[in-house]
Amino acid sequence: MSHNTFGHLFRVTTWGESHGPALGCVIDGCPPGIRFTEADIQHELDRRRPGKSRFVTQRREPDAVRVLSGVLPEEDGVTLVTTGTPISMLIENVDQRSKDYGEIARQFRPGHADYTYQAKYGLRDYRGGGRSSARETAARVAAGAVARRVVPGLKVRGALVSMGEKAIDRANWDWDFVDDAENPFFTPDRASVAVFSDYLDGIRKAGSSVGAVVEVVAEGVPAGLGAPIYGKLDQDIAAALMSINAVKGVEIGNGFEAARITGEENADEMRMGNDGNPIFLSNHAGGVLGGIATGQPVVARFAVKPTSSILTPRQSIDLDGRNVEVTTKGRHDPCVGIRAVPIGEAMLACTIADHYLRHRGQTGR
Amino acid sequence: MSHNTFGHLFRVTTWGESHGPALGCVIDGCPPGIRFTEADIQHELDRRRPGKSRFVTQRREPDAVRVLSGVLPEEDGVTLVTTGTPISMLIENVDQRSKDYGEIARQFRPGHADYTYQAKYGLRDYRGGGRSSARETAARVAAGAVARRVVPGLKVRGALVSMGEKAIDRANWDWDFVDDAENPFFTPDRASVAVFSDYLDGIRKAGSSVGAVVEVVAEGVPAGLGAPIYGKLDQDIAAALMSINAVKGVEIGNGFEAARITGEENADEMRMGNDGNPIFLSNHAGGVLGGIATGQPVVARFAVKPTSSILTPRQSIDLDGRNVEVTTKGRHDPCVGIRAVPIGEAMLACTIADHYLRHRGQTGR
Amino acid sequence: MSHNTFGHLFRVTTWGESHGPALGCVIDGCPPGIRFTEADIQHELDRRRPGKSRFVTQRREPDAVRVLSGVLPEEDGVTLVTTGTPISMLIENVDQRSKDYGEIARQFRPGHADYTYQAKYGLRDYRGGGRSSARETAARVAAGAVARRVVPGLKVRGALVSMGEKAIDRANWDWDFVDDAENPFFTPDRASVAVFSDYLDGIRKAGSSVGAVVEVVAEGVPAGLGAPIYGKLDQDIAAALMSINAVKGVEIGNGFEAARITGEENADEMRMGNDGNPIFLSNHAGGVLGGIATGQPVVARFAVKPTSSILTPRQSIDLDGRNVEVTTKGRHDPCVGIRAVPIGEAMLACTIADHYLRHRGQTGR
Amino acid sequence: MSHNTFGHLFRVTTWGESHGPALGCVIDGCPPGIRFTEADIQHELDRRRPGKSRFVTQRREPDAVRVLSGVLPEEDGVTLVTTGTPISMLIENVDQRSKDYGEIARQFRPGHADYTYQAKYGLRDYRGGGRSSARETAARVAAGAVARRVVPGLKVRGALVSMGEKAIDRANWDWDFVDDAENPFFTPDRASVAVFSDYLDGIRKAGSSVGAVVEVVAEGVPAGLGAPIYGKLDQDIAAALMSINAVKGVEIGNGFEAARITGEENADEMRMGNDGNPIFLSNHAGGVLGGIATGQPVVARFAVKPTSSILTPRQSIDLDGRNVEVTTKGRHDPCVGIRAVPIGEAMLACTIADHYLRHRGQTGR
Repeated sequence: MSHNTFGHLFRVTTWGESHGPALGCVIDGCPPGIRFTEADIQHELDRRRPGKSRFVTQRREPDAVRVLSGVLPEEDGVTLVTTGTPISMLIENVDQRSKDYGEIARQFRPGHADYTYQAKYGLRDYRGGGRSSARETAARVAAGAVARRVVPGLKVRGALVSMGEKAIDRANWDWDFVDDAENPFFTPDRASVAVFSDYLDGIRKAGSSVGAVVEVVAEGVPAGLGAPIYGKLDQDIAAALMSINAVKGVEIGNGFEAARITGEENADEMRMGNDGNPIFLSNHAGGVLGGIATGQPVVARFAVKPTSSILTPRQSIDLDGRNVEVTTKGRHDPCVGIRAVPIGEAMLACTIADHYLRHRGQTGR
Repeated sequence: MSHNTFGHLFRVTTWGESHGPALGCVIDGCPPGIRFTEADIQHELDRRRPGKSRFVTQRREPDAVRVLSGVLPEEDGVTLVTTGTPISMLIENVDQRSKDYGEIARQFRPGHADYTYQAKYGLRDYRGGGRSSARETAARVAAGAVARRVVPGLKVRGALVSMGEKAIDRANWDWDFVDDAENPFFTPDRASVAVFSDYLDGIRKAGSSVGAVVEVVAEGVPAGLGAPIYGKLDQDIAAALMSINAVKGVEIGNGFEAARITGEENADEMRMGNDGNPIFLSNHAGGVLGGIATGQPVVARFAVKPTSSILTPRQSIDLDGRNVEVTTKGRHDPCVGIRAVPIGEAMLACTIADHYLRHRGQTGR
Repeated sequence: MSHNTFGHLFRVTTWGESHGPALGCVIDGCPPGIRFTEADIQHELDRRRPGKSRFVTQRREPDAVRVLSGVLPEEDGVTLVTTGTPISMLIENVDQRSKDYGEIARQFRPGHADYTYQAKYGLRDYRGGGRSSARETAARVAAGAVARRVVPGLKVRGALVSMGEKAIDRANWDWDFVDDAENPFFTPDRASVAVFSDYLDGIRKAGSSVGAVVEVVAEGVPAGLGAPIYGKLDQDIAAALMSINAVKGVEIGNGFEAARITGEENADEMRMGNDGNPIFLSNHAGGVLGGIATGQPVVARFAVKPTSSILTPRQSIDLDGRNVEVTTKGRHDPCVGIRAVPIGEAMLACTIADHYLRHRGQTGR
Repeated sequence: MSHNTFGHLFRVTTWGESHGPALGCVIDGCPPGIRFTEADIQHELDRRRPGKSRFVTQRREPDAVRVLSGVLPEEDGVTLVTTGTPISMLIENVDQRSKDYGEIARQFRPGHADYTYQAKYGLRDYRGGGRSSARETAARVAAGAVARRVVPGLKVRGALVSMGEKAIDRANWDWDFVDDAENPFFTPDRASVAVFSDYLDGIRKAGSSVGAVVEVVAEGVPAGLGAPIYGKLDQDIAAALMSINAVKGVEIGNGFEAARITGEENADEMRMGNDGNPIFLSNHAGGVLGGIATGQPVVARFAVKPTSSILTPRQSIDLDGRNVEVTTKGRHDPCVGIRAVPIGEAMLACTIADHYLRHRGQTGR
């Protein structure tokens, strides 16, 4: 994993800033013979796209993807088949609202990466957050849409499980509701929509923001993916999710709860199934033991901090070392965790695709 | 990061099984001119060593380290100075209690990696856990002892902050007490020793086990270490900590708490300091913004699950696909989280050393 | 080095096929604060561009480069300064002459990668050579133009030193003549132009092709770049040059000649210079000893095979396993070695830039 | 490929200096279920071992290898089977002739890496060449002995094809003679032994040294291994061979000869074979087209420079910047190219094993 690349055999490199002409990704190492359409990619991008409800940023971006390499068109004129060479995908930035960055160009917004970019590089692209903009995640989602097709039978889904002080009722979990047109939150609990709506309207009107927890689940992960020590499947999932902007915590299976219970409570007992595979009587492990997939669903959660862009003035400093007060105007997500759902899915899909190829490389299976 | 290597410029490869003749590590990329003694390494190994109290495994291992390459002895006959070539360190296994593994060799212990190793490789080293044994972590601690010396002014410390249902009182935090001879738990809270002792004695006598949470803190991390997207400092820390056996969750700064609060509460405001560096008025970020170090202490926590080796019989299956009941006898840690403290420190030190070199490579600073 | 990426800290990923909409590269890890203009990049691309004389392919491509990310425009509106984030560059394919590939789509041209692509991937992009097209090298040249600016004082140049049976006279070596408008061969020997012209006209009119040897030289390489064992500077140069299409051999310094002489003849003796640096009395080593730069010019040569596209029918087979005769029509370079000169320079520049950052990372110098 | 590691999925890390206590390697990523004995490894090491004839260094090293991890013993007590975890192998240094390095510790021997190590690291291990000692190559040979077993049907052999001005007669090529007890040169030409013996005796008695060319051939390489652009099989072979000490040039197939001939002469024509595989009518390509294996034997040659340790005094400088005359006493190979034969084989075997796993990872074949 280098600075702008992740994965070993299924490798994704992303590039682009918020206010440059475009952003994109290059997928290297994709197996040949994988079939998809640009509409398949677009479908995932549309799930992440800004401007779809009052609860997400009002920036208008069509996020139209172009596949520039690594595929051959099939006779139907729509289906693309991968050739095994790098797949380059490009998304143009359209709504780069022109404005005077004047003050912001010299101020360090608290909670943002402004100060740290300056400390690292000695200069920074202050336009719309530059490389740290959430727009970068569109490239991840495009890559994830390909990754989903690499592992036969793989199904990766995600959902918002809490927002600030409000949480879903797991008894109401309904995967089908997550992408429902009346669900602006990717929540799996229909009853939570009203609660989240009221709560987030209050946050939004106050010019504030709030954090969230997202859960992602991969079914159909073959037992054996992963590796014992520094190539653990859960370790790579943790890194992949932690690489999403604003994520401050990651857990696998019962996660931090595992620290509070006993070995008896935590063990996932096994019985032999009729199909020759074990049946696990529980899944506290979240589908990973010793860094290697058990064949159960892989379950991970990640904590997204509240957007740092808020209307309340905050104390900070500027490039000249002066104390200033910073207020962040502009178009922002009051709960950036909402749009993190398809991003988390994409990162999980890419990680599993990579391990699928790594496992096959070492073991031939 | 490959299967048994971590880091990019400060690269650590570990090898060895629980019941083979030895284990060890190779550090590649260490800067030349770093000075240490074998006693420095041994000091860290002794902190992790088994057999020191009734609360940890009774396996007796001296864990004596030999430095086989990559150093020149100085005239004092004790100090070693790194030459820039790979540093190989070896620790012999001494107490490989010979025994008949009979049944265990064919049974899959719940919560252990037995089944997943078999699923991955088609065979496994069943002797003492093989590669998954906690003994592998001795190699990490040895590497960490070198890593601590790579970044000038770096100080990495860790502490146990909770065990099962019991937690420390942060008001009592005393770093000096962590390595106190009367403290078998690496707790920073003197008052917690009695509580943890009673609690863990109960667990131990019941043949049970319990999880824990460990906090690690790095001070003296230069602002600017890290990278914006897939080489985030916190992402690499998350991966490093998640690679420790039995870890199920990782968080940076306020971590999962960040998901519950507002942007106003979460922002770390700044004022200009007299020394030309910013003063942060809080550290919810845990020393990392946008993947890059702020110069504040880097703070991470990780959740360790309860040891899966317990006396209560658990349902499982064996190699022949039969249902069996498994009881794990032998020498085990009732709370493996305790000895995870020096391991967590080592992983944090290695990650920061790696980023220090990466940052210097790209920016020259 | 992954399949479509090279370099460790200065990492270049290229993508694109001959007959897709575009090709390009992403440079990851470039230091911040490097200044260049699109015209600087274009200048190097123009040196490699097809269609400039009767001795190179007549495909007409403007090879106009766009820099899509990783830079901030300076106030002059022309200068770009790198921000440390990935630099994406894109070149559109314009002259994708539409045609019926009919037979060629199913035949394996001898000397081409047609058969091996099919053997590897089970399918191939037969349009214009797909990924193996020389067009991919435009992306390398663009990356090299940035790399040249990373190492202060670095100067990388190249020249054609032989073509088929004809070689230059080294006594006539004139670097200034290499890019002379009247020199279609990148030869450093003015007297060779007539010889090469006559020779290659004969080859071209016969529908044949011929090989060549290119020499590349880097001056201003700081002593100390490289590493002793598997990160040798000359090893990475060898890999970088061997990755250019049609290259079959690489040598450093006196290369294969070193195998024919004695230790006395081969040794580069040293004297102390007035500036505190050694003066080498010869440079048989080609500027590299033990994998590490001596501070002398780094000198490498590579052998380019004759283009496999020739008019004389050759025996081959097709996708259906039938014996066929293949004749390669179309626009091709009779001596692909000519345009390999700027490509070799680019690969050398990228390799040195990468080692410059790696050396700085490990040693701080 | 990092500084002391090569390979991507079959990864070999070596460590150790000439005059430290030991040297060794760690192989990471080896498939599970590969069977070998320590005697198999030892057999290869014995081929490379010093002290076997008057034509190689008289240093006496048993080079006894110990396998410390990554294997399970089978019931016969001799066979080891790989488990998929890292294989650590260790070779102790025995004959570290104790001596006063006095002057040599401060002088830079011409042709050696003394000056460049000092320039890179600011210090160096002057004892017996340190990391640059040919002893490091024992670790490569041990790794190669495992690699040979990874690809079913793979056969890797090598031979000395020229020494200084003397070359073999290819008409006499006899693979069986290469390892003949009466053949101290790994020459495939029985008639060359007398010629080489006389020639090298002269060189040796004069305290001189001479270069050589080694050819390595791999049969049974499956068509499809390799990759089109920066993961070319021949590129990785070039890097692997160039990483051997004293190697100054590498070529694949007809190599530099390809630069002198026409496309008609160079093309390897194909006919369909009865077994469904193509028959190539020649192998100018050396088994690689477009970076991907054709299924023909992979053929590479490398040029080894004369040992820089010679008795004739050479001009040089020392650590204090003074001009000095250096004479290299001690035990040295008059033609280090001889013992490079098993090393070249090992590097070729490791490279092919790595590509075998990489190909399988991406394509599942």
